Amino acid sequence: MTVSKAATTAAKASRPARKEPADAVAESHALQLGELSDHLGYALKRAQLKIFEDFLRCVAPLQLTPAQFSVLLLLDKNPGRNQTEIANTLGILRPNFVAMLDGLEGRDLCARVRSTNDRRSHILVLTDKGRAVLARAKKLVATKHEARLNALLGPANRAALLAMLATIAREF
Amino acid sequence: MTVSKAATTAAKASRPARKEPADAVAESHALQLGELSDHLGYALKRAQLKIFEDFLRCVAPLQLTPAQFSVLLLLDKNPGRNQTEIANTLGILRPNFVAMLDGLEGRDLCARVRSTNDRRSHILVLTDKGRAVLARAKKLVATKHEARLNALLGPANRAALLAMLATIAREF
Repeated sequence: MTVSKAATTAAKASRPARKEPADAVAESHALQLGELSDHLGYALKRAQLKIFEDFLRCVAPLQLTPAQFSVLLLLDKNPGRNQTEIANTLGILRPNFVAMLDGLEGRDLCARVRSTNDRRSHILVLTDKGRAVLARAKKLVATKHEARLNALLGPANRAALLAMLATIAREF
Repeated sequence: MTVSKAATTAAKASRPARKEPADAVAESHALQLGELSDHLGYALKRAQLKIFEDFLRCVAPLQLTPAQFSVLLLLDKNPGRNQTEIANTLGILRPNFVAMLDGLEGRDLCARVRSTNDRRSHILVLTDKGRAVLARAKKLVATKHEARLNALLGPANRAALLAMLATIAREF
């Protein structure tokens, strides 16, 4: 495998964004990534971290994580579903999902309501406040986060990237 | 924003791979992802989880995570560096990195050695066992994990994907 120059440069360029204090030694002798820069898993993780950091910055006024935003979007699109359905669809493990729901409920963004069909089960609904926060979040994500990504990649590349990621998620 | 059919299908197809027991209700009425399937961050995270799961399966005989594999690769390529340099290069937070090093050292895959240049600092080195495990891991990753990804995407698409991810990591 060969060293990908682009990915090596990417790793160097991304370092100043890290929270740790700059290390003078590391700065003066950048490490060789070697074949690591040719591993798709590594490249995916680095890109995903960058995108999540930017997402958090863009919706900072609303204090929403990418996962919380996904839950609110899904609840809005699929009212009356239970937490197993929402958690399974997003691929979130149950203990993590329960903790996240507690947080969202504590902020009055969603509520657990007893199902009228099956009284042993609870369905999830957005509150009015949840709907309002989601609307503001969608606007921030579209005008700041996704717009910048579109500008960086261009619409055609962005679509190609999305299609390849979907192929991996579906078939790999 | 419109619903991406590919991503919706991807989410449905990926569900049976989850650890949770299948939910009959969820199976019969799949949820609508809506605009979530058009969010790059969501697509990246789903693809990255799939790739990490496959990586773990492929190197299961060696019990290495993707992050541990990255550390071993970097130590092999950059002998004599300290833990700050390695952690910063990989973007791993210090507490997580110290815990990971403890694990690798406990399995005799790497060692912390006092630096001859600066006796207050420790450098990291691969042990002979670490080198042997890394060699086996590289073979498993290349012949199973990366080969399957190559077959799925094709070499040209794989290269385009890698380049776009590097652009995001570097410039976003």
